[in-house]
Amino acid sequence: MNNKFIPKLKIIPLGGLEEIGRNMTLIEYARDIIIIDMGLQFPEENMPGIDYIIPNIAYLKGKENYIRGVIITHGHFDHIGAIPHIMDRIGNPTIFTAKLTRAMIEKRQEEFDKKEKLSIYTINEQDQIQLGQFKVEFFKVNHNIPDGYGVIVHSPVGTVIHTGDFKFDPTPIGDLPANKEKLAKMGKQGVLALMSDSTGAESPGHSISEKTIMETLGKIIAEAKGRIILATFSSLISRIQQVIFIAEKLGKKVAIEGFSMKTNVEICRKLGYLKTGKKILISTKQALKLPKDKIIILCTGAQGEEAAVLMRIANQDHKEIEIEKGDSVIFSSSVIPGNERSVQRLKDNLTRLGADIFHVKMMDVHAGGHGFVDDLTEMITLTKPKYFIPVHGNHFMLKLHGDIAKNTNLVPEKNIFICDNGQIMEYHKQDETIVGELTKRKVPAGHVMVDGLGVGDVSNVVLRDRQAMAEDGMFVIILTMDGKTGKLVSDPDIISRGFVFMKESKRLIGQTKERIKRIVIDHDPRTSSNDTYIRNKVRDQIGQFLFTKTQRRPMILPVIIEI
Amino acid sequence: MNNKFIPKLKIIPLGGLEEIGRNMTLIEYARDIIIIDMGLQFPEENMPGIDYIIPNIAYLKGKENYIRGVIITHGHFDHIGAIPHIMDRIGNPTIFTAKLTRAMIEKRQEEFDKKEKLSIYTINEQDQIQLGQFKVEFFKVNHNIPDGYGVIVHSPVGTVIHTGDFKFDPTPIGDLPANKEKLAKMGKQGVLALMSDSTGAESPGHSISEKTIMETLGKIIAEAKGRIILATFSSLISRIQQVIFIAEKLGKKVAIEGFSMKTNVEICRKLGYLKTGKKILISTKQALKLPKDKIIILCTGAQGEEAAVLMRIANQDHKEIEIEKGDSVIFSSSVIPGNERSVQRLKDNLTRLGADIFHVKMMDVHAGGHGFVDDLTEMITLTKPKYFIPVHGNHFMLKLHGDIAKNTNLVPEKNIFICDNGQIMEYHKQDETIVGELTKRKVPAGHVMVDGLGVGDVSNVVLRDRQAMAEDGMFVIILTMDGKTGKLVSDPDIISRGFVFMKESKRLIGQTKERIKRIVIDHDPRTSSNDTYIRNKVRDQIGQFLFTKTQRRPMILPVIIEI
Repeated sequence: MNNKFIPKLKIIPLGGLEEIGRNMTLIEYARDIIIIDMGLQFPEENMPGIDYIIPNIAYLKGKENYIRGVIITHGHFDHIGAIPHIMDRIGNPTIFTAKLTRAMIEKRQEEFDKKEKLSIYTINEQDQIQLGQFKVEFFKVNHNIPDGYGVIVHSPVGTVIHTGDFKFDPTPIGDLPANKEKLAKMGKQGVLALMSDSTGAESPGHSISEKTIMETLGKIIAEAKGRIILATFSSLISRIQQVIFIAEKLGKKVAIEGFSMKTNVEICRKLGYLKTGKKILISTKQALKLPKDKIIILCTGAQGEEAAVLMRIANQDHKEIEIEKGDSVIFSSSVIPGNERSVQRLKDNLTRLGADIFHVKMMDVHAGGHGFVDDLTEMITLTKPKYFIPVHGNHFMLKLHGDIAKNTNLVPEKNIFICDNGQIMEYHKQDETIVGELTKRKVPAGHVMVDGLGVGDVSNVVLRDRQAMAEDGMFVIILTMDGKTGKLVSDPDIISRGFVFMKESKRLIGQTKERIKRIVIDHDPRTSSNDTYIRNKVRDQIGQFLFTKTQRRPMILPVIIEI
Repeated sequence: MNNKFIPKLKIIPLGGLEEIGRNMTLIEYARDIIIIDMGLQFPEENMPGIDYIIPNIAYLKGKENYIRGVIITHGHFDHIGAIPHIMDRIGNPTIFTAKLTRAMIEKRQEEFDKKEKLSIYTINEQDQIQLGQFKVEFFKVNHNIPDGYGVIVHSPVGTVIHTGDFKFDPTPIGDLPANKEKLAKMGKQGVLALMSDSTGAESPGHSISEKTIMETLGKIIAEAKGRIILATFSSLISRIQQVIFIAEKLGKKVAIEGFSMKTNVEICRKLGYLKTGKKILISTKQALKLPKDKIIILCTGAQGEEAAVLMRIANQDHKEIEIEKGDSVIFSSSVIPGNERSVQRLKDNLTRLGADIFHVKMMDVHAGGHGFVDDLTEMITLTKPKYFIPVHGNHFMLKLHGDIAKNTNLVPEKNIFICDNGQIMEYHKQDETIVGELTKRKVPAGHVMVDGLGVGDVSNVVLRDRQAMAEDGMFVIILTMDGKTGKLVSDPDIISRGFVFMKESKRLIGQTKERIKRIVIDHDPRTSSNDTYIRNKVRDQIGQFLFTKTQRRPMILPVIIEI
């Protein structure tokens, strides 16, 4: 039989391998495709005005009928965020996910005005789901949102494990440790390929247990004389649980501030993912009537986000909470790259108002949700994969994670695949053994930018223009010309924004108008076919003139109005 | 005698107390003013297109004749960078600084086309300089550029110490430890006020010694099989010295790449601040002919700067150096907030080309130039000041540094002055003792922005416009109207940039033109006094229309051309 006709198992990561974010992986065999995660990424600093970036799904066009299901590992936006933008374009296949993640997905879906309703099947860790020729199982992982699961995909060619986001926490709070037994069992049965979370690959040792974080937080909260304001991510449910446990122990009450955090807490309580003792949670109004040492306010805004609760408090813009001397503000989160300076300004403002600040640089008030080098090593030694594919990270992190795998001596170097987004991996049987190949072939995987209602309609031209105008502003020159004589019928009109302050630059504007007139007069006689020529000449010469005068390069836009 | 006529000692920080950068402090007594440092600050992320920010010198207007001298503590841009912009506006007073700093100032001055030449006096640590009623002395500090000095100002009211940037390094490389003896002596004689560097106030313990850094670097370099490329700040002379020492020990050669680093190395060698053994430094051309394990390339670009050497190497844009598998790239620098993502991309690209990356998150390959909590405590216990003024840091850092002072139990809390830029401190004799006061009075200290040739001419209006255009672009609507009838003589002209891609949005543009026409027609009949009214109406209604269609808010600029 010719090799060509034996189907190969394909693994295609559509996102998450050249960035942190927009995680999405396809696993394909013959006419069966399953998708793992469908996340968004926040824009880079050279993408002004962009809301976020989603995976490119061009490869799935025409293959909609082969999609057997979408598996979502957990409820964070870098894993669920692209669902509202993608699902109805791929035929709305069934989503398989855990209870809490389902609620997060449904909550987000409400914010979008979609015709078709999602169809979601709620999974348990014990479930085995047949999706075409794939049999799919799940294993519990620790992360900083409950109900996170890794995925085991049994295919005709072999078993693929995708960890999702994970850490191994022997002492999590309000949760059980990850299911290492199931992983060890898979390791014994034989794992073809392991796709594992690389976010923590730069950090040596084991990730810090949530128990340690809880102890540090407990100490700060117990010792504080005034009120406690603790800011964290609204989706960091395990941190919220810790604070509630601490409050119970110390006889304090907790008020939640911030819409997204309130909603998440409501969802988690309803589904049983957040244990709250009797009357621990009260409203901010009630809290503010209690003695200061009885209050913990849990809120959003630890990243210095413009409109979040903590920023409004710092700007004295919050309608109920005002910082008083002696209040303790705890930043229980890492600072996402790009937010450092906003966070710094936020701390400055809170300090000015009299607050004492605690943050992660000073003590262990936060742990991330991702395993460090030792955890990553353990994942590999448990599963003993034949092939190893680091995922969820920038290329550099994938490479480091590849080195970690190499150091285990369990995976030969040639079986470690450091891939790009869109790059196709293939696995097939050859002489009784399975051979994997990282092919050179790529499916489209470029940035798809979401800006307002537009998905993918912001081109690089538009972005370049935004950047240019941000740098030195723009300068529109309107030439009203007689269509017959080619003469200016009036002085050129100038509109400038973001370049110089017009009121204070009258002289420069006057000189510029004189130059423009000279350029047009020099050019006489003119025919209308010369519009482009005049425009280019004005653009070049006025651009040069303004640069000489100011060393700035505004975007120059000459317009000719013919009358 | 009336108290009013006894002059007070005034200390006025003009910059560096609400930011890291643009350090500048005035010390004033009667008709004598001395200035300490004159630095620049790099712009915040909400200041697109701005080159940098300098201190506001409005307070010195009319007082030029009282300025007795400008003392510069060391050669970093946040201490010398505003000199070319400020000196000729305050009458070009004499600068007093150490030899290397002088050379750095003169080098920078060459980049500006100034009529007046700076007058600079080179100081030694033993010097005592009389500047009006002030006697000024210096004490050696450790920092990551040689020739850094703190300043001791003896005034008729008491002694003020300004540390400049400092750390205490018992084992610096190619340098001596800071002069603690002189500080202790001052402490015994009595110090009125200590102004001390707060940059490291968040970090517990002692700062890492350069010796430790040298050991780690030595180990990496000794173990590497391929070439070494080490990137650091061009002004980090002590790091450059370490690498040269390591190269000598290991029998390797060093090539310097990057214009600013080359210049700095040249200056330092000439002045004896960099010890280079025989023929250690060679050109890159020569280096590339040697065996790979004999080469260290020292270069700029560890911050991911667009045009720097390391970025060009990573982009395969460098004319001589190409990354080969097995090269080790060491990032020997911290990442300045705001640069994280560029650095991440840089590491990704280098990894792709086959390099092994070492950076500070993974091991001790860099130490900053600023003391940590224990160093800061020691500075206070040595000098035993009556008043303490934390400087050089954001408000939050100043506050933490104030807490450090409080914890020494040497300075009473009421004598710790956490100031803002521009805030006036006053000290005067009262009943045989000196009384200090942090007044509520402020001199102008707002941002002065430098953009190209313009100093202070970019207003908040201009910045706001740049930000708005960066966010959603702009949309110019040109209405050519008959001045008599108020009717449109042709279809409206539209220029849009950074909003939507025009070619792909023909339908939207067509609909918009129709709407504009309707607005103008509805408005008939019209008089020319109604121009503003029509423009506002077009701006509001078209703005709303485009938002409904796209959920973007471009800046809308209606122009009426009357013919």
